Amino acid sequence: MAERIAGPEIERLIQLLARLPGLGPRSARRAALHLIRKREELLAPLADALNTARERVVSCSICGNVDSCDPCTVCRDERRDRKLLIVVETVADLWALERAGALAARYHVLGGCLSPLDGIGPEELNLAGLVARVADDGVKEVVLAVNATVDGQTTAHYVTDLLAHLPVRITRLAHGVPVGGELDYLDEGTLIAAIRSRTDF
Amino acid sequence: MAERIAGPEIERLIQLLARLPGLGPRSARRAALHLIRKREELLAPLADALNTARERVVSCSICGNVDSCDPCTVCRDERRDRKLLIVVETVADLWALERAGALAARYHVLGGCLSPLDGIGPEELNLAGLVARVADDGVKEVVLAVNATVDGQTTAHYVTDLLAHLPVRITRLAHGVPVGGELDYLDEGTLIAAIRSRTDF
Repeated sequence: MAERIAGPEIERLIQLLARLPGLGPRSARRAALHLIRKREELLAPLADALNTARERVVSCSICGNVDSCDPCTVCRDERRDRKLLIVVETVADLWALERAGALAARYHVLGGCLSPLDGIGPEELNLAGLVARVADDGVKEVVLAVNATVDGQTTAHYVTDLLAHLPVRITRLAHGVPVGGELDYLDEGTLIAAIRSRTDF
Repeated sequence: MAERIAGPEIERLIQLLARLPGLGPRSARRAALHLIRKREELLAPLADALNTARERVVSCSICGNVDSCDPCTVCRDERRDRKLLIVVETVADLWALERAGALAARYHVLGGCLSPLDGIGPEELNLAGLVARVADDGVKEVVLAVNATVDGQTTAHYVTDLLAHLPVRITRLAHGVPVGGELDYLDEGTLIAAIRSRTDF
């Protein structure tokens, strides 16, 4: 019986919701019921928002961010320091840094990191665009804000080599204890990095 | 800066996704990016599925299930035992029992449970429909498959009183150790119930 609980329309909605990250089959069913219960307050606006996003969201031709305008809101923002370029792996990383609001700089989204095991080589990443921007665009410092993973660090080294012939300072994010973190729960690599990069108190 | 990461279209999509159960602000952003990346494979079909659900999904006028037809697939199913009626609080509970496939019966969805603190009294539940069905529809047994919470049990007692004048057997779900459960992690109420309802091995 389990295969015919509801009509095909609801089953299809559940299947699609279950493909969202963070939702499994069970929570997708819960989400579908929630949507059906709140048809006018949530289901209809969400359908409209998805249709709008489908029609209007584009990749920024400069940095690779996604937005409803090209160049994106971040690239258009004149208050940002044009000498500073933050290189990130994904749009999610760009958004995370923007939420933190640490630096009013511009970004360059690589679209992933080098990962030979997953078949991602330099051709799959937006590296040509990065070299062109750094060479032409008055950039003085490139911050490599890639993940602190093996693949991320491999990518950082590759980008550093690519930019070696250009008169630009290349920096990376600091390693250390996360703010609010407890030493007891941290891995040894992080603790060693935090000790080595210790600063005056 | 944080308020202007992306255009209003994306922000609105994130806000709506964050209102789904199981998705918080952070996972809603991840889901939105995932949808934008998979525009043709996921975003477009999901928008279509939501539009279809918005137009076609209705409440079953007999049992209160949601489906694209009225009466719903479950009520239309002629193979089910018409003498057995399972009373559930919500459509989610109906689906859970159908997935388990424990009993080929029909259902009655109350639409919640009595909860004085939340202002939910008998008028808010589909109780009149239940009494009418039990009285007219040849029902011999009503299974009270309500939650094992205080409110659920209050509702069960209320329903029992409502049906007391009708010649119908009223049963409830067994309490006991969940299949696969470990005694060490169970609360005392469940253990006491499991001991009291012990069966021959």
